[in-house]
Amino acid sequence: MEFRLIDRIRARLSPGEDVVLGIGDDAALLRPRPGQHLVAACDVLNESIHFAADDPPDAIGHKSAAVNLSDLAAMGAEPAWALLGLSLPAADPAWLDGFLDGFIGLAAQHGLQLVGGDTTRGPRSISVSVMGWVPEGAALRRDGACAGDDVWVSGTLGDAAAALDGAGSGEHATWLRERLRRPTPRVALGCALRGLAHAAIDVSDGLLADLGHVLDASGVGARVDVDALPASPALLSCGADAAQRRAWQRAGGDDYELLFTASTADRDRIESLSPQHAVALTRIGCIEPERGMRLIDAQGAAVESPQRAGWQHFEEQR
Amino acid sequence: MEFRLIDRIRARLSPGEDVVLGIGDDAALLRPRPGQHLVAACDVLNESIHFAADDPPDAIGHKSAAVNLSDLAAMGAEPAWALLGLSLPAADPAWLDGFLDGFIGLAAQHGLQLVGGDTTRGPRSISVSVMGWVPEGAALRRDGACAGDDVWVSGTLGDAAAALDGAGSGEHATWLRERLRRPTPRVALGCALRGLAHAAIDVSDGLLADLGHVLDASGVGARVDVDALPASPALLSCGADAAQRRAWQRAGGDDYELLFTASTADRDRIESLSPQHAVALTRIGCIEPERGMRLIDAQGAAVESPQRAGWQHFEEQR
Repeated sequence: MEFRLIDRIRARLSPGEDVVLGIGDDAALLRPRPGQHLVAACDVLNESIHFAADDPPDAIGHKSAAVNLSDLAAMGAEPAWALLGLSLPAADPAWLDGFLDGFIGLAAQHGLQLVGGDTTRGPRSISVSVMGWVPEGAALRRDGACAGDDVWVSGTLGDAAAALDGAGSGEHATWLRERLRRPTPRVALGCALRGLAHAAIDVSDGLLADLGHVLDASGVGARVDVDALPASPALLSCGADAAQRRAWQRAGGDDYELLFTASTADRDRIESLSPQHAVALTRIGCIEPERGMRLIDAQGAAVESPQRAGWQHFEEQR
Repeated sequence: MEFRLIDRIRARLSPGEDVVLGIGDDAALLRPRPGQHLVAACDVLNESIHFAADDPPDAIGHKSAAVNLSDLAAMGAEPAWALLGLSLPAADPAWLDGFLDGFIGLAAQHGLQLVGGDTTRGPRSISVSVMGWVPEGAALRRDGACAGDDVWVSGTLGDAAAALDGAGSGEHATWLRERLRRPTPRVALGCALRGLAHAAIDVSDGLLADLGHVLDASGVGARVDVDALPASPALLSCGADAAQRRAWQRAGGDDYELLFTASTADRDRIESLSPQHAVALTRIGCIEPERGMRLIDAQGAAVESPQRAGWQHFEEQR
């Protein structure tokens, strides 16, 4: 680690009681929680792929924390610690300060403490590993969806994809771009869904792709009402036609909303979470025993399912 | 994550009992060890910085695991789990298979299980986070060196630096290059040093730089006999003059040996670890109350201390 940058990072932290030893040794020393499972995930963000070179550094910091917090949220886990692997073309204290404003700012809101990492030279790239806690047996997994379950999604869909495509103008464009740059991880909602959701995932690759992951893991299928997919006022007002909007909602990634399934008997309990967590919760379909995904419109008519395409991490290679 | 690459990775793993849920969900679910502290570290390796573009992929995999295992070793921690963040310019199954041969091969030798991560497009970069366990209070930290302690180092120094500089020819060059490409993390030695070493660090930035980190953290100084620094037969035979060799031994990084301090009363116990762990253990100096580092030769004469330079992660910027 480069010590000037590290000192700059360390100066901004105030480790909690569960951090026996934070930044500055070969590794961090951390105190586990009895009776809980450790939840661990890692996401990498590369310049020109996951963020633009001229994005504000605090937005890049925010997003780097958000996408990882979103993984914890999708497991119903309470955030604890993060490791930050930061590659930069050159030591750039001003950029780092901005980055930390965004990263540490969002992390602190969710109880996530930066406890270690690495800073090194290289093309700009941010690798974050997060750890969190969930009571044994309470994690929200992808493989628990049951036939008959409702399919729910939080917030609105397609905003980030619309922003990537440069949709809208003025305040609508600004709002959409903020959704892309500064997504809101649904951490408290994820924890509240313990014991309610049968399966959960965060919408990072695109609604249909991520629902597909749940269906594959659970060995079931789903019917989805594409007219029920929640849209933000900005998306509805951005000037795109309905077909384009629906495409963004179905296949666009980077929204970091929670997609989950739950028993129909729990509809009221789930709806009551919406005002508590200040986020819309929308039923968009149901789980069926027959494998595959069936898209319908508000009239119940079949809608042609495009490919189940979402974010492709690599071009297909054969 | 890109699912073909992920499936390729997952197919090679056989998760142990402490892995409740491995690769394939939003995060891994892991079972902590009661009464132990979690030890967590992260290292990033970038192409052209930490490895050459044409290095064999299995060597890159080996080194990616080794440098992280070395961090755990330097804490006296037992390896448990790893997260792998892999950026590649394109999906390249053959490269990935070679990389995994090296990574998983070395990890398995040390009980380190790959439990999650991320694969994405970008300039080739490998980010590894590792987690391990150490009994409460038993971790080897940097800040415990005491005046009067012996200073020890495992193995030999300067081999990786010599290889980087293209030293030697024939079998000597090959041996040195293997030390650079496939370092040996001293994991079992690190665990055996619990209760013996007062302070420890791994030699990644260079002997003097890393000893400096220990001295700074512990608030002490040291006297180091530069003629006592252990050299490999390959380094001694590679044709470099003594001044060059000593420079590599003092300032060269990437050897991943353990540097530690211990009471003089424990010399016999420490020496007995050498045959057990099949690695040389050499006393190279002693800790003194007066801050700073004093280099002497075998006759006790002062040797000019160069800068305390080792591996510079960034050029200095002012």
